[in-house]
Amino acid sequence: MTVSFKDKGASRRQFLTGAAAAGVGTVAATVAKAAGDPLITQKQEWAQATGDGVDASPYGLPIQFEGDVIRRNVEWLTADTISSINFTPIHALDGTITPQGCAFERHHSGAIELRKEDYRLMINGLVDTPLVFTYEDLERFPRENHVYFCECAANTGMEWAGAQLNGAQFTHGMIHNMEYTGVSLRTLLNEAGLGAAGDLKDKWVYVEGADASSNGRSIPMEKALDDVLVAFKANGEALRKEHGYPVRLCVPGWEGNMWVKWLRRIEVTAQAIESREETSKYTDTLEDGTSRKWTWVMDAKSVVTSPSPQAPIKHGKGPLVITGLAWSGRGAITGVDVTIDGGKTWQKARLAKPGEKMAMARFYLDIDWNGEEMFLQSRAHDETGYVQPTKTQLRDVRGLNSIYHNNCIQTWWVKPNGEAENVEIS
Amino acid sequence: MTVSFKDKGASRRQFLTGAAAAGVGTVAATVAKAAGDPLITQKQEWAQATGDGVDASPYGLPIQFEGDVIRRNVEWLTADTISSINFTPIHALDGTITPQGCAFERHHSGAIELRKEDYRLMINGLVDTPLVFTYEDLERFPRENHVYFCECAANTGMEWAGAQLNGAQFTHGMIHNMEYTGVSLRTLLNEAGLGAAGDLKDKWVYVEGADASSNGRSIPMEKALDDVLVAFKANGEALRKEHGYPVRLCVPGWEGNMWVKWLRRIEVTAQAIESREETSKYTDTLEDGTSRKWTWVMDAKSVVTSPSPQAPIKHGKGPLVITGLAWSGRGAITGVDVTIDGGKTWQKARLAKPGEKMAMARFYLDIDWNGEEMFLQSRAHDETGYVQPTKTQLRDVRGLNSIYHNNCIQTWWVKPNGEAENVEIS
Repeated sequence: MTVSFKDKGASRRQFLTGAAAAGVGTVAATVAKAAGDPLITQKQEWAQATGDGVDASPYGLPIQFEGDVIRRNVEWLTADTISSINFTPIHALDGTITPQGCAFERHHSGAIELRKEDYRLMINGLVDTPLVFTYEDLERFPRENHVYFCECAANTGMEWAGAQLNGAQFTHGMIHNMEYTGVSLRTLLNEAGLGAAGDLKDKWVYVEGADASSNGRSIPMEKALDDVLVAFKANGEALRKEHGYPVRLCVPGWEGNMWVKWLRRIEVTAQAIESREETSKYTDTLEDGTSRKWTWVMDAKSVVTSPSPQAPIKHGKGPLVITGLAWSGRGAITGVDVTIDGGKTWQKARLAKPGEKMAMARFYLDIDWNGEEMFLQSRAHDETGYVQPTKTQLRDVRGLNSIYHNNCIQTWWVKPNGEAENVEIS
Repeated sequence: MTVSFKDKGASRRQFLTGAAAAGVGTVAATVAKAAGDPLITQKQEWAQATGDGVDASPYGLPIQFEGDVIRRNVEWLTADTISSINFTPIHALDGTITPQGCAFERHHSGAIELRKEDYRLMINGLVDTPLVFTYEDLERFPRENHVYFCECAANTGMEWAGAQLNGAQFTHGMIHNMEYTGVSLRTLLNEAGLGAAGDLKDKWVYVEGADASSNGRSIPMEKALDDVLVAFKANGEALRKEHGYPVRLCVPGWEGNMWVKWLRRIEVTAQAIESREETSKYTDTLEDGTSRKWTWVMDAKSVVTSPSPQAPIKHGKGPLVITGLAWSGRGAITGVDVTIDGGKTWQKARLAKPGEKMAMARFYLDIDWNGEEMFLQSRAHDETGYVQPTKTQLRDVRGLNSIYHNNCIQTWWVKPNGEAENVEIS
């Protein structure tokens, strides 16, 4: 059954010799010279029938050649890996879905192994009937599917102080975008009954996980009854251990810390709990020393993922695809602008498809690169009319004491040799 | 940081004792008895801080407890695994995205390992300028993203002869649904120039792969210029080896055999090649011994994935989520009907979101199961007005000699004990 070009005679090779000579047109400079290219004219060892049949990997992993498309930690950033974070390799991905295997992790006391049989979810507090659900119970309620982004509030946090981390993975990789399946939190709260809570307007839910940290967070009842999802699948399959198996919360558009993993308890309360994770952590200290609290929503943001420091241009000048991601916690992305001259002139990028609420959008700008240096930036717009700010605009309002909620425009300095660096421009 | 219910005092336990007694309401029967449940009242070993921090798995796999959610082969179906097929565990998935790791495989001569550096794609035949592209060249053309299903023409093929394979994975698992990123084939053909082809109306492209089988297929020019995609990413990341790394073809809505993996060559031709894969294979023999050829489009189809033989009902009567998948090669799914009485009465299922062209749709029907036997079926409708046929209707037209293109309504006999079996009803 082996068929190779070599076996098929000389006429095709003659064709290709002509092709190499005749290469013209917009992208003609990118066409490989085929004449004498042994990868075209010779039979290849790797093209033989292999022993890698369908029993080779009942559950597959990426091919060995993609071994660098992995989550990465920044050693100096975190003292230990247990209460730590790593980053999605967004510089190497395309499209919008993040595979679970390389979606960033953030743990407060390590990823626990919790069996479905051992899983319990309690709803208590100001409810008519406190309830405890098993995993199997949850599977009996009406389900929803939604693609949502989950962004850590600290994403891009190191950049407040200047251009620090040299790669989109490290500056913007505390984010993932997955298709979640689960039960609306509204459904479960109604099952317990909210009559006992009285006027719901000023009520809260307090959610905590089954891991040692418990990672408790308070969520206003209005959000809890809106779009919060008690999820048990991501991208079709069970949540991975590191993403909260068997059940996590999805709080669309809101900071990732609230997306409690290994979800154990939901308490309806008369006021916010003011837990560690919403007071000493996940608040933004302003210039005057006071702190912004309840900064739940992730504002519109975008980043060019390629070219970028980890994804340099290797092919020289000519046709170049500039691509990146945009998202907004306030709704759908409606547009992305891209500049190659540091903001002097902007071009409208192309969205791969219309933006969806609280989901990542992929943008592209196809240019003919002249080979000169570029100061690449992207700027997201969302359906509320919000426009992603510059770092200067953000600092003017927020000062330099923040860690969280840095959604400023990012700059990559692309040099004539195609390499890129994280820089700030004013 | 360890927080457990036990540490928090007795008041909550009293609450839950009350809860267990008070359990009423629609899904109340599903609520676990919390009083005395050590999984609620005791501190758990697994809840301690773990050593599984962010460096545990730079690229993660499913948790060990999900070890049965894997691709499976059917040994008696195929003589060897090299030229063989396995099945997506659709009975255990939800949502619409299929993770690459458990998406079914079909190889004609094994999965090859082809490095990006060794990759070449040739376009030749009736073109103005035959061209050869490297992988890097392909990355310079404008990209598109689309979620598409890919279904093997032989999916459900064993069921022509009767109810044979006992599980949705085996009857309907030769399918996956992924978000593909790539370059339109139209773009590449236009780069080579189609002036030399003359009138395009009756022209074809012949596509082949770099594996030993080459798996060549002819595609009418009209389709080639419509929506065919030269893809290099699936669900955001590189194609896995078994899915054609680094480049495969996506032929939306058309049989999976045409989605050539390790794509090597595209030849513009004046007529179809009539290759092995489109003559002796992938044709449907009718009752009179003649064969239907060029049966490219996968007609509208659906299947209940749960409950099903591999996903029995374990919780007894009461609230039950019936769920499944629907798809059509002719466009978007517009609706799915579900029957629990073998087709006497049908109910409109709920689509998780509006159907998209040539992509899988997830449907749900939430019922209150009376604990009696059910004959579960689903019936898909697509935007052309086509309605998925019964097995009898299909056999009336196509006879019993076919292997491919069985899109009939599937029946699961669900017994009072919750177990399900593949059956035929007339």
